[in-house]
Formats: sequence, C-alpha cells, structure tokens
Amino acid sequence: MISALVDHIRRYVSLDEQEVALLAEYIEVLEVKKKGFLLKEGEVCKANYFVIKGCCRSYFITEKDTEHVHLFAIENWWITDYSSLERKVPSMFYIQALEPSILGVLKRDKQDALFAAIPQLEHYFRSILEIALAAAHMRIKYIYSQSGYERYHHFSTSFPEFVQRIPQYMLASYLGFTPEFLSKIRAGKIS
Amino acid sequence: MISALVDHIRRYVSLDEQEVALLAEYIEVLEVKKKGFLLKEGEVCKANYFVIKGCCRSYFITEKDTEHVHLFAIENWWITDYSSLERKVPSMFYIQALEPSILGVLKRDKQDALFAAIPQLEHYFRSILEIALAAAHMRIKYIYSQSGYERYHHFSTSFPEFVQRIPQYMLASYLGFTPEFLSKIRAGKIS
Repeated sequence: MISALVDHIRRYVSLDEQEVALLAEYIEVLEVKKKGFLLKEGEVCKANYFVIKGCCRSYFITEKDTEHVHLFAIENWWITDYSSLERKVPSMFYIQALEPSILGVLKRDKQDALFAAIPQLEHYFRSILEIALAAAHMRIKYIYSQSGYERYHHFSTSFPEFVQRIPQYMLASYLGFTPEFLSKIRAGKIS
Repeated sequence: MISALVDHIRRYVSLDEQEVALLAEYIEVLEVKKKGFLLKEGEVCKANYFVIKGCCRSYFITEKDTEHVHLFAIENWWITDYSSLERKVPSMFYIQALEPSILGVLKRDKQDALFAAIPQLEHYFRSILEIALAAAHMRIKYIYSQSGYERYHHFSTSFPEFVQRIPQYMLASYLGFTPEFLSKIRAGKIS
C-alpha cells in the first residue's frame, strides 16, 4: 500500500527491503472520504500526510468568514502544518480531502523513532523541505511581482494536473483573486 | 570564528570536538562590506550563508524596476536561494549585506561531503528548514489575511531586533506597502 511512498523516497535515498518493511510499521495508511478533514483550526496537528491517491487542500478562514485556499497536494506530495506539528500549538489551518483519498500518515510521535531506525530519511525530508521552501519563496515573489493573469498562466503551465482536478473557485482563492476574475481569464476577456 | 554556528547547531544535535574541527574545514568565513553582494540576479547561487555577525537581505527587481525586499537575516539565520542552489539555475534574487557582516559559508559543492562526514547535520538542516517553511507559510497566510497595519504590528512585535536595524523603506517593501504608509503607521495616523 505504501509502494508509492517507497518509490518517492528512493528518488532521494536508498532503502533496502528490510527498511521498507520497517517503514511499513511506522507509516499508517488512512482512507479519507471526499470533504473529510485531516486537521481543523484550533487542533494541534499530529501528523505529516503523504498523498498516495487523491487530492487535499489546506485553507484558513479569513476575518470576513470566507475560506482562503493555502495549499494543494496531489499524489507524491506531503501536506501538514509544520508550525503546529513541531511547536505543538493549535493550528490556524484546515486540511481537507477534495477527492476520496488514500494517505500515508507519519505521526509526529513516531517520527523520531523512524528517523533513528532509518537515518537516511533525514536526508529525504531535508531534500523535500528544500523544494517546498523554494516553492513557498517563489510563491511570495509571484504574489508581489505578477498580475493575477500572470499568476494563473504560470500556475496552469507549471501544474496542469492541478487545474483539471481542482474546483475553479478554490484555484481562484489560492491565486488570490475572485472566481469571477478567473472566469474572465478563461473566457479570454483578460490578457 | 565559527563558534556561533557551532552553538546554533548544538541547539539541535550534538557535535564533539573532533566534529567541530571537521566543520571548521568545510565552513569558510567571509567578511562582507556594507552593501556588498553575496548573489546577484542571473548568477547561480553557490552557497548557503550563516550570519555570524551583521545583517543581510534578499530582494528582487520588479517589472517596474523597483527593489522588492524578500527576506532579512541577522545573527543565527541562514540565507540563500534554494531554488538556484539545488537546481543550479540562475537566481531571480540578489543577496546583499545591509551592515558590515561576517558569514559562515557552506558551499554547495562541499555540502554532500560535509553531510557524509557529520551525518547529524542532516537533522540540523531538516529542523531549520521546517522552521523556515513554517515561517514562509505563515507569511503567505498573513499577506492574504492581515491589513498592512496588522502586518507591521505583528512583525515589529515578533522581530523587534529587525525593526531597529533595518532601513524603514526596506521594511515597508518587505511588508508589501509604501514607505509613506509605514510613516503614517509610526506617526499613529493609521490604526
């Protein structure tokens, strides 16, 4: 069941069959229905989630009581709230499945023992964190330097598989504009 | 010279005296004058920089030919462009000293050998990357959910040492508003 995760880890570090068996003891597999929650605002985040199949998002509620989409994750992406996970403080985010999803779950209270058992996972997670941090910084750059139209085209070119699977109003929220603006872009009324 | 870095690493992992000596062989110490550059747009970023003493910023040039401040780093912070460093592509950012600065330099071409020599550094960097990623995600949340006034107060409460050392127009740029708006906040004209 965790073969997708094993394949992903092996892109970065080696894992022998004994380590794969060990990994399977630490990673729980969780099936979540569409719209099911992995985390809600106010809860302490307890795990890091690897998407084996499906699609999830994190979002927060603004002062105006609207949802703002913060992140998406499809197959081979991890999703969590590191602020809450590592500092054990209540989260400001929700994490929710957008499709029926299968997740590999690394619980925080098992993480240290897993890294002690398979030390090369430190390298794996360091590598994916570098990629995630680079992506977050590029996103901040684009918020301040691209127009809404440019952000949409950059995102849809970089991540076409997301655009097909994600409800349009969520994509608009993630990109920081209204669904009406996205409709106009897609209708060719804004360029 | 790298004792500040050794102390910082020891907050996360143990380092014996032999490892400290080894670390000193891998980390170069660089003195940079005020306004000196560690990276310029178009160059491939070659190193990760630990601020032993001083203050640096990264910034990019917008289409309107203005500087937008992206990050600050003071003592005990690392600064680099992971996108460029890991993918070996030209950077979109500048990294510049704002004060005469002393930096510990981990060159990318020495990094793998250093991690092989002192494997617990994988854990150290994984830990600081988690913190940096959590900070980047909170920053994105605040861009979309806080007013300029709220962002200024949150930043000045969280990082008072930055506010004292950083030119006000750079702080305004980092927070996403004009120097005039910041002057009004500080004069109590906006609340």
